[in-house]
Amino acid sequence: MFQIRLARGDIGDAKAGRAKAAMCEACHGLNGVGLRPDVPNIGGESDIYLVAQLTHFRSGERQHEQMSIIAEGLSDEDIENLAAWYSSIQFSVTLPP
Amino acid sequence: MFQIRLARGDIGDAKAGRAKAAMCEACHGLNGVGLRPDVPNIGGESDIYLVAQLTHFRSGERQHEQMSIIAEGLSDEDIENLAAWYSSIQFSVTLPP
Repeated sequence: MFQIRLARGDIGDAKAGRAKAAMCEACHGLNGVGLRPDVPNIGGESDIYLVAQLTHFRSGERQHEQMSIIAEGLSDEDIENLAAWYSSIQFSVTLPP
Repeated sequence: MFQIRLARGDIGDAKAGRAKAAMCEACHGLNGVGLRPDVPNIGGESDIYLVAQLTHFRSGERQHEQMSIIAEGLSDEDIENLAAWYSSIQFSVTLPP
């Protein structure tokens, strides 16, 4: 299991992931901010979480009309690179007053 | 479908959600930042996305060891309130250099 074996930041090539993310951009943006309210923000998610979700979409464990099809075409390396890219984005939050 | 019917920001009571989020805090923090690398950041996700995911965990459409059990105990109102709270958190990203 990726989630157990690997520590955050250990996987993938963020530069290759940034290039591959062209295919994600129409919904998630290059910066990982969802462009529609049904699309999650993924910028700054951990690489471990991102690898798990893409792997689950590819295996069918998690289902989504678009993501299930998109993930089918991803290699393990693609998944690790995409996870490296989106997890390399800095993420910060501010609580409402 | 929530995702089609509702516009972002239309649903739930963020204050009630903030109180209910005590049950989410051990993993997601009150501010929605995942406390372990297998836990997603949910602060700043849209209410529509959050309602969809909690509803999918509750129905079994999305599966997760902890979340499937936790979501079982949530009412529609709880889900909408939690979504209102976590979506009310301001979220920003910065690309790596």
